[in-house]
Amino acid sequence: MAERLITVALDAMGGDHGVQEMIAGAAKLSQEPSDIHVLCVGDILKMDEVLSRTPHDPARLTLVASDGVVPMEGKPAEALEGMPDCSVSVAARLVAEGRADALVSAGHTGATVLAAAEVFDRLPGIRRAALASVYPTARRHGPRNDPFALILDVGATVQATAEDLVGFAVMGAAYSSIISEITRPRVALLSNGTEPGKGTPAIVEAHEALRRTGMHFMGNIEGLDIPKGSVDVVVCDGFLGNVVLKMLEGIGDVVNSVASKASSRSLQWKMGLMMLDEGLRRFKALTDWEGYGGAPLLGMDHVVIKAHGRSEAQAIRNAIKVAAKAVRGNLIGRIQRGMAEVEAAGVSRAAP
Amino acid sequence: MAERLITVALDAMGGDHGVQEMIAGAAKLSQEPSDIHVLCVGDILKMDEVLSRTPHDPARLTLVASDGVVPMEGKPAEALEGMPDCSVSVAARLVAEGRADALVSAGHTGATVLAAAEVFDRLPGIRRAALASVYPTARRHGPRNDPFALILDVGATVQATAEDLVGFAVMGAAYSSIISEITRPRVALLSNGTEPGKGTPAIVEAHEALRRTGMHFMGNIEGLDIPKGSVDVVVCDGFLGNVVLKMLEGIGDVVNSVASKASSRSLQWKMGLMMLDEGLRRFKALTDWEGYGGAPLLGMDHVVIKAHGRSEAQAIRNAIKVAAKAVRGNLIGRIQRGMAEVEAAGVSRAAP
Repeated sequence: MAERLITVALDAMGGDHGVQEMIAGAAKLSQEPSDIHVLCVGDILKMDEVLSRTPHDPARLTLVASDGVVPMEGKPAEALEGMPDCSVSVAARLVAEGRADALVSAGHTGATVLAAAEVFDRLPGIRRAALASVYPTARRHGPRNDPFALILDVGATVQATAEDLVGFAVMGAAYSSIISEITRPRVALLSNGTEPGKGTPAIVEAHEALRRTGMHFMGNIEGLDIPKGSVDVVVCDGFLGNVVLKMLEGIGDVVNSVASKASSRSLQWKMGLMMLDEGLRRFKALTDWEGYGGAPLLGMDHVVIKAHGRSEAQAIRNAIKVAAKAVRGNLIGRIQRGMAEVEAAGVSRAAP
Repeated sequence: MAERLITVALDAMGGDHGVQEMIAGAAKLSQEPSDIHVLCVGDILKMDEVLSRTPHDPARLTLVASDGVVPMEGKPAEALEGMPDCSVSVAARLVAEGRADALVSAGHTGATVLAAAEVFDRLPGIRRAALASVYPTARRHGPRNDPFALILDVGATVQATAEDLVGFAVMGAAYSSIISEITRPRVALLSNGTEPGKGTPAIVEAHEALRRTGMHFMGNIEGLDIPKGSVDVVVCDGFLGNVVLKMLEGIGDVVNSVASKASSRSLQWKMGLMMLDEGLRRFKALTDWEGYGGAPLLGMDHVVIKAHGRSEAQAIRNAIKVAAKAVRGNLIGRIQRGMAEVEAAGVSRAAP
């Protein structure tokens, strides 16, 4: 059965590596079997230049002109205002106008959020957006045996109310059910103890509310459970999520630097590392953020995937594929259904 | 030059392993050269029974009778009220009465905090106590090359005001300067970005205040900096500190379980691990919490060390030694001096 064509609008100018890696990622994907068409939004001359020396399938990739790009540093609001036709804004408009199904950007996170908020609507019941990220876990998840779990919010909403946290739980479960193909993802609140009364007032209240929903709510988990991967979806405010995610990145960096120092150290160490090759490769896969394809920005009425700023071609290809998978899995419809169920359970009244 | 004798009151009934490991730890220390005398507080018959089969120096160890012990599970306030002469309360009173210089307990954390708060005074300017913990870092710290940094609060004060965070910074710097022998420890606030405006309102306000003090304040650090060990003292509220510390414990658990699975797997893996022996031992030391001797409870007018509930004899010995080192380094005086400097800088007025 042929699936319908998914069109993804790619901000081809964003990211630390700029147009080169963006176009290379889209070009790579265009040569693989898939039902994805990519609209590459950016400077036509520069994009053409990259394409001229990159193998690609022109039938699966279209260039769209934009004017300017939001720099990775600085205030995104001012940049967006000064450049109404910059790459991320044009890409977002293509989605809002129905000419594309999803937006992918590796540019400035704040700019992506603002550009999306400008032309997309928030979903009913969702007051605040959330940025979700997968992270490596010791335990595997779902029928695909994914070696990662989902955590949200990781930075869009620094301080979250109980109502926000309930919305994050619904959105995280919807995304996890599509990406990891888990029918009823296990969802938990991250707190400083497993007892229902533990945590900030917002967490205590969200715990009460989530218990009354039909979600697969596991209660509170502690920091210990994050690396273990005790649940499929970890819910917290954007402040805590940012610290947790960056800690995990930092630990990955430390492990990689220890391993590379060790291997240059002595013949004995080198041989030891060679013998552990399989194990180390497995560990490396766990800390290989590039493989996972980006973080969804949840809460809008369209699919938005924020790829890591340091994404190279392969990571961009993965981000586009993840965006298409979210569209095909009807992410927006699932979130809407989840929010309707939560409201039917009378939860929104209890969490002002 | 002979140093004065330090007397440490040990709650000899607390902890997961009970009287056996507590007394074994004190007995072990009594046979080593040091100027520490331990008052072991607990059930005399049980303590005597352990001592009868444990080598020790009776001149450096005294048994003190108490009645009852706070269980590791349940409400500590009720337990303490029902048992006024339980081991942790009697040990705290010995310190308050000047018969001992410091309190060490591996019992219920909440009970230790409550028992201490009942008989000790809070230091001037300190509104809320903090529990500090060392944690392993990639970078080494201070003249002793310690492979760990300090983080506080890790659970005594779940939600902290700006004023509380400033107090934590002062107390953490005082403790770090004694334990790691760093003259001016580098102190930072844990936040979701390095810019001064990043974080919760309490963090933003504390940042402003700390910049005006004479402390070696490095500004905000992010989650990335925790495993790296970019600073000597990490300051945060007890909620965040609890999540961070438990995450680090969880990662240690995962690494240990992966290593033990790997070594039982195949001859090749076993040989690889043997060849990496030195590196693994070094890593194991990093994640070996037992070695560091416990977490100080800061903010009272006496030294209190909370050893981990699962402490065995060696960890108890270390906790007693750390307590004596804090007394000898004049921890309380250093905190008082630090708070006086902060108030002289007009910081307390700016952080209501």
